[in-house]
Amino acid sequence: MKSKDIEEAKARASAMLRRARIVITPSERENMEVADLGFGDLKNLGIQIIVYENNDRYCAKELILFPRQICPEHRHPRVNDRNPGKKETFRCRSGEIYLYVAGEPTPRPKARVPKKYRSFITAWHEITLRPGNQYTLPPNSLHWFQAGDKGAIVSEFSSTSTDENDLYTDPRLRRVKK
Amino acid sequence: MKSKDIEEAKARASAMLRRARIVITPSERENMEVADLGFGDLKNLGIQIIVYENNDRYCAKELILFPRQICPEHRHPRVNDRNPGKKETFRCRSGEIYLYVAGEPTPRPKARVPKKYRSFITAWHEITLRPGNQYTLPPNSLHWFQAGDKGAIVSEFSSTSTDENDLYTDPRLRRVKK
Repeated sequence: MKSKDIEEAKARASAMLRRARIVITPSERENMEVADLGFGDLKNLGIQIIVYENNDRYCAKELILFPRQICPEHRHPRVNDRNPGKKETFRCRSGEIYLYVAGEPTPRPKARVPKKYRSFITAWHEITLRPGNQYTLPPNSLHWFQAGDKGAIVSEFSSTSTDENDLYTDPRLRRVKK
Repeated sequence: MKSKDIEEAKARASAMLRRARIVITPSERENMEVADLGFGDLKNLGIQIIVYENNDRYCAKELILFPRQICPEHRHPRVNDRNPGKKETFRCRSGEIYLYVAGEPTPRPKARVPKKYRSFITAWHEITLRPGNQYTLPPNSLHWFQAGDKGAIVSEFSSTSTDENDLYTDPRLRRVKK
């Protein structure tokens, strides 16, 4: 991504946090991860992340999604004998998020997915999260999500985060930092 | 505690969350833990807690402290071979909190501790947390904290929480649910 686009995304995400009264430090703003996953289409596909803490025991992040931005389908597989894969809880703080997991497909889902990304989505069981709602994903379960029309801020609580182990359904996707 | 006092504390804590734009569900409000630790002096000593998630891997809570309320000195000792004790991160969301850990005592600390509780405080190294600031405590480290004049809301991210293992410096203290 161009540094101008990254700065623009950081400014936009920071403004959303301010509106939601979520305070971050200047250094957290500076280190915000803007992930377009190599697609160069951040408006539709990608995510902004502030990592509050990631240590050997647990992890906590704030996820900021622009209106209708999609975090594409992936899972967190088993890492080793002591780590059966990342377990994570998404708690919606503001806006609205449509989370999709394996299971009975939801008729008339709320997500709107551009055609070019549809072929790499397989999970269509919908969970709608509004402020105060949360959902915990077991390790290694497929999931993806899209923010509603006003975007969303989601607190992620989880076991230790090791992005390099994530497996995306779309083999073209990769997690690129900044 | 009398159920009237518990209800009053819940209402007060809920109002603080509302002012900070932190949304909780009716069931989270209902299940809010109001802990006076058996002292019957909630105004000065105690804490209000909403447990968002506590599973085999991690835990996330919102701590609500009334103005100048003290969470007394304690530590989270080793539980077994796989759990060296709870590790936790305090992130201030609103208000101000004075956190005390072992180390060089801070001259003129900001905390104001009623005489009757002073004898069971040993850690006086002060860390002031304002919105956006956070601090991670290693397992088994002594700590206590007091909210500032306007109270405080603190997100706690941690490894699995097992309150029954907590060790308080004051042997009179016990963790009483509701």
